[in-house]
Amino acid sequence: MVTRLSNYFVRTLREDPADAEAISHKLLVRAGYIRRQAPGIFAWLPLGLRVKGKLEKIVREEMANAGAFEVHFPALLPRDMYEATGRWEEYGDALFRLQDRKGSDYLLAPTHEEAFTLMVKDLYSSYKDLPLTIYQIQDKYRDEARPRAGLLRGREFTMKDAYSFDASDAGLDASYQAQRDAYERIFQRLGIEYVIVQADAGAMGGSRSEEFLHPTAIGEDTFVRSAGGYAANVEAFETLAPEPRSIEGLAQPVIFDSPNTPTIDTLVEHSNAVLDGTFTAAHTLKNVVLALTHLDGTREVVVVGIPGDREVDEKRAEVAFAPAEVEQATDADFARHPLLVRGYIGPWTPQGALLGEESASNIRYFLDPRVVDGTTWITGANINEKHVHSLVAGRDFASDGTVEVASVRDGDLAPDGSGPVTLQRGMEVGHVFQLGRKYAESLGLKVLDENGKLTTVTMGSYGIGVTRILAVLAELNHDDRGLIWPESIAPFDVQVVATGRDALAFELAEEVAAALEGAGRDVLIDDRAGKVSPGVKFGDAELLGVPHIIIVGRGAADREVEVWDRRSGVKTPMPVAEALARFGA
Amino acid sequence: MVTRLSNYFVRTLREDPADAEAISHKLLVRAGYIRRQAPGIFAWLPLGLRVKGKLEKIVREEMANAGAFEVHFPALLPRDMYEATGRWEEYGDALFRLQDRKGSDYLLAPTHEEAFTLMVKDLYSSYKDLPLTIYQIQDKYRDEARPRAGLLRGREFTMKDAYSFDASDAGLDASYQAQRDAYERIFQRLGIEYVIVQADAGAMGGSRSEEFLHPTAIGEDTFVRSAGGYAANVEAFETLAPEPRSIEGLAQPVIFDSPNTPTIDTLVEHSNAVLDGTFTAAHTLKNVVLALTHLDGTREVVVVGIPGDREVDEKRAEVAFAPAEVEQATDADFARHPLLVRGYIGPWTPQGALLGEESASNIRYFLDPRVVDGTTWITGANINEKHVHSLVAGRDFASDGTVEVASVRDGDLAPDGSGPVTLQRGMEVGHVFQLGRKYAESLGLKVLDENGKLTTVTMGSYGIGVTRILAVLAELNHDDRGLIWPESIAPFDVQVVATGRDALAFELAEEVAAALEGAGRDVLIDDRAGKVSPGVKFGDAELLGVPHIIIVGRGAADREVEVWDRRSGVKTPMPVAEALARFGA
Repeated sequence: MVTRLSNYFVRTLREDPADAEAISHKLLVRAGYIRRQAPGIFAWLPLGLRVKGKLEKIVREEMANAGAFEVHFPALLPRDMYEATGRWEEYGDALFRLQDRKGSDYLLAPTHEEAFTLMVKDLYSSYKDLPLTIYQIQDKYRDEARPRAGLLRGREFTMKDAYSFDASDAGLDASYQAQRDAYERIFQRLGIEYVIVQADAGAMGGSRSEEFLHPTAIGEDTFVRSAGGYAANVEAFETLAPEPRSIEGLAQPVIFDSPNTPTIDTLVEHSNAVLDGTFTAAHTLKNVVLALTHLDGTREVVVVGIPGDREVDEKRAEVAFAPAEVEQATDADFARHPLLVRGYIGPWTPQGALLGEESASNIRYFLDPRVVDGTTWITGANINEKHVHSLVAGRDFASDGTVEVASVRDGDLAPDGSGPVTLQRGMEVGHVFQLGRKYAESLGLKVLDENGKLTTVTMGSYGIGVTRILAVLAELNHDDRGLIWPESIAPFDVQVVATGRDALAFELAEEVAAALEGAGRDVLIDDRAGKVSPGVKFGDAELLGVPHIIIVGRGAADREVEVWDRRSGVKTPMPVAEALARFGA
Repeated sequence: MVTRLSNYFVRTLREDPADAEAISHKLLVRAGYIRRQAPGIFAWLPLGLRVKGKLEKIVREEMANAGAFEVHFPALLPRDMYEATGRWEEYGDALFRLQDRKGSDYLLAPTHEEAFTLMVKDLYSSYKDLPLTIYQIQDKYRDEARPRAGLLRGREFTMKDAYSFDASDAGLDASYQAQRDAYERIFQRLGIEYVIVQADAGAMGGSRSEEFLHPTAIGEDTFVRSAGGYAANVEAFETLAPEPRSIEGLAQPVIFDSPNTPTIDTLVEHSNAVLDGTFTAAHTLKNVVLALTHLDGTREVVVVGIPGDREVDEKRAEVAFAPAEVEQATDADFARHPLLVRGYIGPWTPQGALLGEESASNIRYFLDPRVVDGTTWITGANINEKHVHSLVAGRDFASDGTVEVASVRDGDLAPDGSGPVTLQRGMEVGHVFQLGRKYAESLGLKVLDENGKLTTVTMGSYGIGVTRILAVLAELNHDDRGLIWPESIAPFDVQVVATGRDALAFELAEEVAAALEGAGRDVLIDDRAGKVSPGVKFGDAELLGVPHIIIVGRGAADREVEVWDRRSGVKTPMPVAEALARFGA
């Protein structure tokens, strides 16, 4: 059935929506594809639903090629299964929680590891049933603190989430690879550039984890890559630590006056002046006080020591201390720890260790991987307006472990030896995880192995953000006049535009549309009455973004039309028959 | 791609699920189509999802034929729009309510009138934009007190809900008819018997309202129909009231002793004895005390007078007093109204009216439509162990109005004069409503009419329970061995079963499956190894319910197969080529 713009449920808007920042958000709303219902929550209008349907079809095809079977789980799930894996708590405020009329706790699922695990536990019992990969395309919920950029980060969004189940690690590797390959095919078919980066598994638990990032300035993720092929999310970047050095013969620590040195810069300048040195910020040890909130609600103050030329990267700190939540220590935290002299904190005092286990403060102390034994530092002396120099790691102070919280910079060395990295912004469009046995253990998913012994199943979890990808496609495929859809997901294959007031043109346009539809094309006809000017019709066509447009107007009497390529902008006059032939009709 | 039972995600069960009553529930779980996640909440396994997909396709086709456009709204919606129409409160405990991280109120939508209305208000402004019918196929939520019977009454369920928008009443009639016709086509295509009954609009507001009921003993609705074509939900049945009679010359009321007459039966027996009459229960007026809880939380005691041979029908009372909630009066209610003498309540005392406006009690009094002026009754005298006879309606007592709360019986007369009705049980499978201007008024949806004046839009709302229909189809299409799907929604067109241990049979089965798939059939092949006995394979095939089964076994060497018609049970041996030809391959 030919779709008619004269009665179709679409209204194009001239103005950008007030709350829109991202171009995809602006264009999808202005062209009548989506419409906001609440922060981060959108309704899909007919045009949007068509594009989404075509995108989902591509995802389904590649899931089928990867041997995955489609299922569909409810969005509303009971608390107990998420309680068993700890995620009821871990998800924090991002989880939509509710109660039913009987007071039982439920949630709107952010992902479905638990339910899938329990389903396989319910139905399967033998290694012979495996491997198994099942997936769904389903609406998910996350109560984002700052839903932004339209579909790029919503609170309700459509995801394809797949889960694999294997009896062996080798099986998991194969299932993981099959999904990873499918993702590559999906992004290639859609024409979306991607980088596969090492990622931190975060709240999902598990081991191997890679993200598909689309490099874009509006991305929310930062990743690094080296010319030698290393790529990692900045949260997963591992510092290449230097070798420890010999402590032998190093000078003893010396406390020196350092008034008015509230910043690293002023400290370096002052040190070079009074110590007659050529110190840089990298020679100073900056001690940052953080407050962790553990899952049980307890608050713990910890100190991290990082080279003074680095900052604490919030996201890296989140990952490093997960599942605890991290924030900067507050005045109240300092008040509870009077041994910490603000602005002059260091791990050492002439009386012994100030920080770390069995130290004077009993405050845990973590060090950046660069602070290896035998390195010498200028740092706070825990006395107001005094610092200490020649303080040697491994001799004068120790830590409770290393943490990757320091910021990553262009030029840092990749841990695999592939050279210096550069930082880029990216948008996460897919994620593949090896969950391992975490969920199967929590929920008791075991099968009988070849020897009749129970063995815990190992799992993978694979997600693609369908609605986010749609937004990325809009970001990639537009010009200043509107959207330009790739053929694979365009809402219609061809838009036929009848112009002018000549009935002949409208008749020919109908004929063209019917012929194209008969040949299996999805056709939209702009059959709005002649008083709607060609300018308005062309403007709407450009905004909607159907890739091929056939204009039927003045040449109708001679059965001449123009074929307009939306992307190149080129309009080519030709006989109707030739135009139809171009689209297989 | 041919689907293989050897690795498909399906597990048939021998035992019925413990919580299942309905046969559809038992079979859909046992055959591996669905699986319970929480009360009234199900996951869809691959087989179930295939059937659901085919059912949705039929619904989409008929919606397109009716000129409706598909959209998709979020399940999670903000409170304010439902507040504006009063439904936030009216829905009571059946609404899943929740808050986001900022404490804003949200709900999981039970239906989407508000959101659709606001969308049209957002985008449309002129009568020229109308008529418009838009629909979605979407997961809805209702926190049912007693989710039961699997998919027949779930708390999360899939619905097709359509909404029409018109500038005129005539337009609404046309839009309503188009949806009504589409529903008829859908049920006809699916082979589901249906009766279109008049319904009460209930909490939805509005005027014309019809339900599509599938007559079945397990239905939750009761409806009546006459041989002359009348059909109504029992809640919507209107009593054919007799004409009022003349009061002139009727005897005056007489109080008489009536000890030990706690029931209508004992009262009738006693009356016939002491009054020397031939009274029946229909001559007595039973006064039932009900307690209404209004939307503002206030509780009101009311009395309804109905002929003694009837009961108060709870569902009819609910509708009659909506949006107030109705229950039997409690001891506490009686304690607050000492004028009501339990067991001997009547509207009259020798001192004047006891019930109704400006009466001694000020309690509102409602009468059954049969209690017309001039009818004479035996009823309570508001004195312990005393009744009154010869009490005449319209002379000795009056009411605050009539209510339809009395039970309906076989033989009651249809209000349209089409004769006596019979009662039947039915399952609601569709509902078409003329909402009128209720929602448009609450939410301010107006368009400019032909004269440039703002006019309020009139709306319709049309729902089909997709998952419920799927369950009804399972109820209708099975035998004691399993499901028997109609071809139009079967998960697969053909199931090929390879039996025995002969490799030749498996090779031929693969060849048959590939040929059928190549001809566009959806094919499931039971390629499980030869050690799975033919009995198990046939049993599974019968349980799964694919309508056509091709058995490849002993005759493989001669290229002979059996074509098994699941519904008739007939197995017909034939050459492979003939079997393939039967299915267009």
